[in-house]
Amino acid sequence: MKNGIKIVTIGGGSSYTPELIEGFIKRYDELPVSEIWLVDINKGNQKLEIVGNLARRMVEKAGLPIDIHLTLNRREALKDADFVTTQFRVGLLDARAKDERIPLKYDVIGQETNGPGGLFKGLRTIPVILEICRDMEELCPDAWLVNFTNPAGMVTEAVLRYSNIKKVVGLCNVPIGMRMGIAKALGVDPDRVQVDFAGLNHMVFGLDVYVDGKSVKDKVINALGNPENEMTMKNIAGFAWDRDFIKGMGIIPCGYHRYYYKTDEMLAEEKESSATNGTRAEVVQQLEKDLFELYRNPELNVKPTQLEKRGGAYYSEAACSLINSIYNDKRDIQPVNTRNNGAIASIPDESAIEINCVITKEGPRPIAIGDLPVAVRGLVQQIKSFERMAAEAAVTGDYHKALVAMTINPLVPSDTIAKKMLDEMLEAHKEDLPQFFNEVKS
Amino acid sequence: MKNGIKIVTIGGGSSYTPELIEGFIKRYDELPVSEIWLVDINKGNQKLEIVGNLARRMVEKAGLPIDIHLTLNRREALKDADFVTTQFRVGLLDARAKDERIPLKYDVIGQETNGPGGLFKGLRTIPVILEICRDMEELCPDAWLVNFTNPAGMVTEAVLRYSNIKKVVGLCNVPIGMRMGIAKALGVDPDRVQVDFAGLNHMVFGLDVYVDGKSVKDKVINALGNPENEMTMKNIAGFAWDRDFIKGMGIIPCGYHRYYYKTDEMLAEEKESSATNGTRAEVVQQLEKDLFELYRNPELNVKPTQLEKRGGAYYSEAACSLINSIYNDKRDIQPVNTRNNGAIASIPDESAIEINCVITKEGPRPIAIGDLPVAVRGLVQQIKSFERMAAEAAVTGDYHKALVAMTINPLVPSDTIAKKMLDEMLEAHKEDLPQFFNEVKS
Amino acid sequence: MKNGIKIVTIGGGSSYTPELIEGFIKRYDELPVSEIWLVDINKGNQKLEIVGNLARRMVEKAGLPIDIHLTLNRREALKDADFVTTQFRVGLLDARAKDERIPLKYDVIGQETNGPGGLFKGLRTIPVILEICRDMEELCPDAWLVNFTNPAGMVTEAVLRYSNIKKVVGLCNVPIGMRMGIAKALGVDPDRVQVDFAGLNHMVFGLDVYVDGKSVKDKVINALGNPENEMTMKNIAGFAWDRDFIKGMGIIPCGYHRYYYKTDEMLAEEKESSATNGTRAEVVQQLEKDLFELYRNPELNVKPTQLEKRGGAYYSEAACSLINSIYNDKRDIQPVNTRNNGAIASIPDESAIEINCVITKEGPRPIAIGDLPVAVRGLVQQIKSFERMAAEAAVTGDYHKALVAMTINPLVPSDTIAKKMLDEMLEAHKEDLPQFFNEVKS
Amino acid sequence: MKNGIKIVTIGGGSSYTPELIEGFIKRYDELPVSEIWLVDINKGNQKLEIVGNLARRMVEKAGLPIDIHLTLNRREALKDADFVTTQFRVGLLDARAKDERIPLKYDVIGQETNGPGGLFKGLRTIPVILEICRDMEELCPDAWLVNFTNPAGMVTEAVLRYSNIKKVVGLCNVPIGMRMGIAKALGVDPDRVQVDFAGLNHMVFGLDVYVDGKSVKDKVINALGNPENEMTMKNIAGFAWDRDFIKGMGIIPCGYHRYYYKTDEMLAEEKESSATNGTRAEVVQQLEKDLFELYRNPELNVKPTQLEKRGGAYYSEAACSLINSIYNDKRDIQPVNTRNNGAIASIPDESAIEINCVITKEGPRPIAIGDLPVAVRGLVQQIKSFERMAAEAAVTGDYHKALVAMTINPLVPSDTIAKKMLDEMLEAHKEDLPQFFNEVKS
Ligand SMILES: [Mn+2]
Ligand SMILES: [Mn+2]
Ligand SMILES: [Mn+2]
Ligand SMILES: [Mn+2]
Repeated sequence: MKNGIKIVTIGGGSSYTPELIEGFIKRYDELPVSEIWLVDINKGNQKLEIVGNLARRMVEKAGLPIDIHLTLNRREALKDADFVTTQFRVGLLDARAKDERIPLKYDVIGQETNGPGGLFKGLRTIPVILEICRDMEELCPDAWLVNFTNPAGMVTEAVLRYSNIKKVVGLCNVPIGMRMGIAKALGVDPDRVQVDFAGLNHMVFGLDVYVDGKSVKDKVINALGNPENEMTMKNIAGFAWDRDFIKGMGIIPCGYHRYYYKTDEMLAEEKESSATNGTRAEVVQQLEKDLFELYRNPELNVKPTQLEKRGGAYYSEAACSLINSIYNDKRDIQPVNTRNNGAIASIPDESAIEINCVITKEGPRPIAIGDLPVAVRGLVQQIKSFERMAAEAAVTGDYHKALVAMTINPLVPSDTIAKKMLDEMLEAHKEDLPQFFNEVKS
Repeated sequence: MKNGIKIVTIGGGSSYTPELIEGFIKRYDELPVSEIWLVDINKGNQKLEIVGNLARRMVEKAGLPIDIHLTLNRREALKDADFVTTQFRVGLLDARAKDERIPLKYDVIGQETNGPGGLFKGLRTIPVILEICRDMEELCPDAWLVNFTNPAGMVTEAVLRYSNIKKVVGLCNVPIGMRMGIAKALGVDPDRVQVDFAGLNHMVFGLDVYVDGKSVKDKVINALGNPENEMTMKNIAGFAWDRDFIKGMGIIPCGYHRYYYKTDEMLAEEKESSATNGTRAEVVQQLEKDLFELYRNPELNVKPTQLEKRGGAYYSEAACSLINSIYNDKRDIQPVNTRNNGAIASIPDESAIEINCVITKEGPRPIAIGDLPVAVRGLVQQIKSFERMAAEAAVTGDYHKALVAMTINPLVPSDTIAKKMLDEMLEAHKEDLPQFFNEVKS
Repeated sequence: MKNGIKIVTIGGGSSYTPELIEGFIKRYDELPVSEIWLVDINKGNQKLEIVGNLARRMVEKAGLPIDIHLTLNRREALKDADFVTTQFRVGLLDARAKDERIPLKYDVIGQETNGPGGLFKGLRTIPVILEICRDMEELCPDAWLVNFTNPAGMVTEAVLRYSNIKKVVGLCNVPIGMRMGIAKALGVDPDRVQVDFAGLNHMVFGLDVYVDGKSVKDKVINALGNPENEMTMKNIAGFAWDRDFIKGMGIIPCGYHRYYYKTDEMLAEEKESSATNGTRAEVVQQLEKDLFELYRNPELNVKPTQLEKRGGAYYSEAACSLINSIYNDKRDIQPVNTRNNGAIASIPDESAIEINCVITKEGPRPIAIGDLPVAVRGLVQQIKSFERMAAEAAVTGDYHKALVAMTINPLVPSDTIAKKMLDEMLEAHKEDLPQFFNEVKS
Repeated sequence: MKNGIKIVTIGGGSSYTPELIEGFIKRYDELPVSEIWLVDINKGNQKLEIVGNLARRMVEKAGLPIDIHLTLNRREALKDADFVTTQFRVGLLDARAKDERIPLKYDVIGQETNGPGGLFKGLRTIPVILEICRDMEELCPDAWLVNFTNPAGMVTEAVLRYSNIKKVVGLCNVPIGMRMGIAKALGVDPDRVQVDFAGLNHMVFGLDVYVDGKSVKDKVINALGNPENEMTMKNIAGFAWDRDFIKGMGIIPCGYHRYYYKTDEMLAEEKESSATNGTRAEVVQQLEKDLFELYRNPELNVKPTQLEKRGGAYYSEAACSLINSIYNDKRDIQPVNTRNNGAIASIPDESAIEINCVITKEGPRPIAIGDLPVAVRGLVQQIKSFERMAAEAAVTGDYHKALVAMTINPLVPSDTIAKKMLDEMLEAHKEDLPQFFNEVKS
């Protein structure tokens, strides 16, 4: 690599950007970033300016020779990049609000990365990510694509199957959040906690947990039944697990598993809270407004603590750690989304999984686990089936594939309701789904 | 084999028995059955006498030297058997009625072989079938076990994993019913129709359909969207499929798939019909009463046509065809439940699947299909996960395993409701589930 | 299909053609062939004329309306074909003689389908078969390719991996010969004998053997140690197996397995017989000369019995049976070379295997066997590795790949000798290997 | 673990022991060993005394509180052990000499861990290691078994399949030797070199090689063709690879691959050197004699440099590093023999492989590689088939299985020669193979 590392962040106007900047500043000694290109689209220009200027003030305060470039020209930015991170949101939070609202009308969970919402976020996002891949092939073929954009598992699957970019990693803060939550519940320093992660994005399990190398899984399972140790995400309601169920499972679920093992309670809660506080997108819209108000302040030259409420805790941690380990061939263990390669037996080699990997200069190498416990193989496969059908629909714009993806999702109760939601959501997101509307519905 | 074939039918007092007798009579020329032992338990003695005497009159009318033995002594019957067929029902129709009624209280589908009802039928049946296997090992180690008892897939899985009997076949009339339905819908003779069956019991798909060797799959898919061609079972409400969904799937579902792809409609229908006509078990109880009234008639010496309403159409066809093909090494193709052996890629080799097999004297040999279409792999795996956890719970009497089986079933909405149903159903079926009550709940 | 079936035979001037003609005549009632196009190259024109005229006399004698076309124009022939059979030999028997002679100089077995000879036959044949596939895609995309051309396994592998033709079957007379040999050794009618075949071409095993549906494997294994029951091929020296070895294996090897399990004896025999009678190619050259002398006789209008000495016994049987079963959707069981599809666990789904299949109108469907016995998995994999590397070398003309294929062949003792043989054989076959000589050796 | 770590070394009288002692002394700060029990058999008592006293002097010189126990009572030693290392040799070097000499009479390579010699070393060793496992189950069920005893792959396979000990690791110095050799050939510090190891014991490949995280595979492949960079073992003749062959393979072979890819040269060399210098065992016998002469010297209190000639360089390094990483949950990467668990696609999950693993307190976790390159899958499978048949023969004492193992070994030319060697070697090792002689040969 040239004189220093060139980072390109697609969706650079995101409110998360200060986290990322902070992460690079913190690691500058071993990870000498020389340029960060924040890329956004026309609509996001104003936010890009605000957050970009904050980034510049942060770098200046740190006294580091990192150039912050702000641009609406993605191709210019990608030229000779070393790492490309993606954190964009096609259709912005308005689209997310629709993903959340419309399903609720049909008594179906409306959520950003699961169910009908996850499907539509995928349908909107995948064509854009594949365009980026095509640009990368041409402009920076040796760069790593580090994707934060949700649904990160489905997006990684799509890149692995439908692009020529093989250097892709999907990132999520769920595993790191679980590790932190477990450490807190056990009252130990997080550095002493190891979790054997395996599964899919937002469907990852802790197969075992160690403190100082000794399994404490049973202790953690007991703690999970305790409503005070919710170990959940900002955007997920934190019902406690039935202790007998988790004991029977013998592994640690992630917060998102509640959508599948507590479907009725989650739906009831969503309906309630959307009626009172608004859906999560609507809450976030307000949070974002407040954040950008803060960011605008020319005196601010560090990441404001209020950002933590936004929900993306540890995202920067995950991304900067990953980039650092790749750059420096650290060979440490991190849970990321990567090509399976036989690491989980019942999933195709070429599919994306989320699993503990050794991070090398050649990218993540998954640690083989044999197979998942019998009890969860089915659900994991079902979500993988859903992700693959959704990715295929996103790429082809095939109405029938989209209907199949919608119907086979475990949160959707019938082909009839699937079709109604599909039709309403296609119409609602029409502008962001050209692949479904360029031709007459077949 | 000795002077003729010895058949033993466990649950011989069943109303289906005349079908079976008719099947053996029809095939006598190539399948020389010399003894049929109808075995039942004390409680079923009266029905055994009625149906046994009808069987004797049928044989006598046919003028064949087949001895019909009636006994309550299973071990005496099994001695030196050539084929053992099982069609018993632990807890009789009363137990089935509970399996149907209790889940409905929790807004969950109550059905004999799916969801909570399927789980409990499995928990009651598996210990008994494994006892029969132990007796067979000792008394007729070379005999074939032909199991009709539902849930036939889960039962076959349990025999394959937890007994030493390797000569086991699980039978279901769903595939043959699909073939007949398709023939009828297309207006062609059933003998001209070939269906590529693959999947699990009550979760079997027609991957392709041929008439005279030419694929007519698209025609059949179109017909499936036509409410007049329901191709369903007597015990399943026949909602038409959404044509776009089936077209997207590109394969032919079976009637039971409605529970998974039309969950809400099926639940609504069940609630409605159980409130008006009673559950299926309650309807069947009346049908059975009427049938046994008929069977009692000493003038009756053929299978009465009223039996067809009972729902088991083609069961005798399936069983007698299978036995005939094994006995005569016919090497024809029949869809049965057998050890996977790699025939379906994403299912363990040692698990039971329902698939087209070549039937040889050494038993069924599955035809390899590579893998199921992506869209259905997930659901199939989920049912297999459920079946395996249920079988493990049945064998161990482990409360936690049973709770996991219940919760991971796709028809159950949460761990909380799963636990409530489990506790109520365990109590309701207490008498037939000694394995869960012999020791203190762990 | 039109008014009748159109068969195209590439390499129609072969001495085997009368067998094929006889097979079609015999089956005319159910397999109404209306045209047979015999295609050959310039060099083979004379033989084509001779054998073509014999074919016409045979058809005339049978009184059947089958048109025999003789042509050097392959594309004209392929137009709208229903079945294309291939039995050509690139470089003719001269090339085979080189394949047999050159390795012997290095103390390595020289054989048509194994070792260095098999490699070079593949290198010469595969580019031609792939050209035929490209023509078929254009001129008869619905036709079946029935390949007899050796090495049939490697050729089928190449078609499956490097062409768009999916309707391909590889054929060999080894399995049928084994069945016949076993029947003879046991003194029973071949129709009563069933063999569970599985493996690769010229590396197929009988996993079990049945007479009237009863296993007689142990009897057959005993017979194999008896030098009078050699069950071998005309072109393979018939050393008896060590009875203890075969008993330990517990399965029936084919004649070609002697090259691998009796390498030293086979080599010694080859050296001896090539020094006295000439190599097999040289013997065959004389046989062919005699045969064509016979064929020339205008009085001859049936297949002469002398053809049987040639070694291709049952090839016609195998080919015509296969075509008949495909055409009539017979769903009988035949051992052929087809896509694995999971039927043998340790071989890739997309590779060619030789295995018992149900023959349907849609082609062969392999019967799943789980996995081969542990003892033979290794050798089978090694031959598959060899076939794949050879096919890759044939397609790419890559010298290094060819060297790897040569070296990893189990009959070749070292990289050094491999290279010497490779270099000498490349030079000797230069004319028939343009892919290796069009560019400078990389 | 108690007050310190208890190490038990079976075969403690080995000349390698000072290496091991030195390794523990060097790592004492993080690996606080309190007891080392050196166990040997009666015959080895004198060597045990000599080497044990040297060990005591080494510890004393280091000033560490490590107790050295010498005993002939294995069970006493095993009680409450933390790590059990095995480095015994059933039949001593005399047996090895026979393994080397007898095959040469049949023109077959005689080698300690490959071919007939490897088979017989396995047949002698496996019953003893399984006895040790049974003792461990009873006396130290939580201990780790770290096996150095050759053939380490076959022995690890046997422990995984035929004992209840799951905490087993097989160790070899080949990978570390390759890494060192590569570093030397490239002229860089070994710490900067990373190799992606995968395969089987003594059949391991370097799939890629990195210096400072950058692939230098092509450079290494070029170096391999250079006779000065042999990268081989003390006990293996160092012929240079054909550069074109290795370039075609595209991966780095280990020294033992010469037996398979240079069979004729290796055989010729063995015959030559055994005729002049004696076989390796005979050379080693003299080396050992000299070493023990040195060890006897009461002034010696460090590992003498002459030990390096013995051939086991880095064994101590490998063993102590492994034990250290397990004890301290280091999660670094080491190549060891462990359960496959899906890491290499074409090998059964439950078989032993040699592969890069993350070493945790719970043992090694293999890094998934998908599958080996096509070119080597065959040979690897063949060795695995051999290892499995050999292990089965060792456990059962079944003559036929042993004959199959012998015949399918790639170095053995025929069933006939296999049988002759088997019979002669069984007789020669009779005393150490009770399982084959307790009953009449079946
Ligand atoms: Mn996430
Ligand atoms: Mn059924
Ligand atoms: Mn052949
Ligand atoms: Mn070693």
